[in-house]
Amino acid sequence: MKVYEFPGFPNPARVRIALAEKGLIDQVEFVSVNVPEGEHLSDAFRAKNPSAAVPMLELEDGTCIAECTAITEYLDQIDGAPTLTGKSPKERAVIHMMQRRAEAGLLDAVATYFHHATPGLGADVEGYQNAEWGEHQKENALKGMRYLDGVLADRPYLAGNEFSVADITAFAGLIFAGFADITVPQDCANLKDWHMRVSARPSIAA
Amino acid sequence: MKVYEFPGFPNPARVRIALAEKGLIDQVEFVSVNVPEGEHLSDAFRAKNPSAAVPMLELEDGTCIAECTAITEYLDQIDGAPTLTGKSPKERAVIHMMQRRAEAGLLDAVATYFHHATPGLGADVEGYQNAEWGEHQKENALKGMRYLDGVLADRPYLAGNEFSVADITAFAGLIFAGFADITVPQDCANLKDWHMRVSARPSIAA
Ligand SMILES: N[C@@H](CCC(=O)N[C@@H](CS)C(=O)NCC(=O)O)C(=O)O
Ligand SMILES: N[C@@H](CCC(=O)N[C@@H](CS)C(=O)NCC(=O)O)C(=O)O
Repeated sequence: MKVYEFPGFPNPARVRIALAEKGLIDQVEFVSVNVPEGEHLSDAFRAKNPSAAVPMLELEDGTCIAECTAITEYLDQIDGAPTLTGKSPKERAVIHMMQRRAEAGLLDAVATYFHHATPGLGADVEGYQNAEWGEHQKENALKGMRYLDGVLADRPYLAGNEFSVADITAFAGLIFAGFADITVPQDCANLKDWHMRVSARPSIAA
Repeated sequence: MKVYEFPGFPNPARVRIALAEKGLIDQVEFVSVNVPEGEHLSDAFRAKNPSAAVPMLELEDGTCIAECTAITEYLDQIDGAPTLTGKSPKERAVIHMMQRRAEAGLLDAVATYFHHATPGLGADVEGYQNAEWGEHQKENALKGMRYLDGVLADRPYLAGNEFSVADITAFAGLIFAGFADITVPQDCANLKDWHMRVSARPSIAA
């Protein structure tokens, strides 16, 4: 399988971490798409992913899977031993919910701030920008951090006792927040502690 | 199990359709939350769902699951015979991707238009509004409709030959578009045909 990505960017990092957690890095051929130069906007790439974004997974039969959550779902199911998306219906539901909250409330909020209230990837790549909406999403990202901090008050990982795709999404949110100069509020001690623990995982530190 | 909802609203409709498709309606106690009067913003409801939105599923053990996709994942897994979220890793990935595209590109885009560029649920319920962003999302919703129309050119349902949660999300998007007076473009013949076929399903027509 092939993964189209731009190394170092937050969404591709989600798939890199999932692959490392699953021990699948060696099975993937990585293809670089130069997002800062707008290569993801080309007709050739849009034919594979109409959403014009990385990462994207291409299977041997040519099937193209975009969206990190869909890619992670695939990677987590292929060995019949899901470790990132949960086993029982209840585990799967809680992980799914927490992933979505980390995505909408942190990662996507930070991305919207970056693309709308800062120069983002530059005028050639950014189209329409709405700075006021971007600033509003920065406030949402800070609220999201406080929400996740509260969740981590009584559990080690966002969906419970085990590391999951919800943690991967939130971790990518903090990578992106770093790029965009949004700082985790001082009083979010649980989130900062979780960030250190997650950063030390072999899938990330290595 | 209990489902907190407001009857007739588009997101609760997603869970109603999933329950009907799975034959599980009789196993649920529905609890009405008066969203137009702001009941979802109360401390009591926020304690169950900090995102302050319906629908929400409460399990017998008190676990609260918000987000339609997480609720549908649960419902689809409890009988060990998933029909809405796919069986093989590849099916699951494609459905997951198409669901996310229908959600971000249509349903959530229409919702943002409604809440930002129209009076929405009224000044008491709507907080911050950004009309320009709302109008931009209306354009995105129309793009989303054209994208889905293209997908349906060579398959009966959004993720392939079978009806799935991706179709439920897009269907809810068209319900919401109806509320918000966004009309499906005349030339989207595949999407209109799909809309008629999906509307006739017993889970929806009944
Ligand atoms: N929701 C998508 C987000 C993908 C995304 O936004 N990727 C960024 C790189 S971190 C990108 O390709 N951006 C291109 C652009 O904004 O034009 C996912 O889960 O994969
Ligand atoms: N992403 C959520 C959306 C839920 C949602 O926005 N529900 C609407 C009713 S259709 C709501 O409760 N809105 C409350 C508000 O906007 O204040 C889901 O999948 O459940």
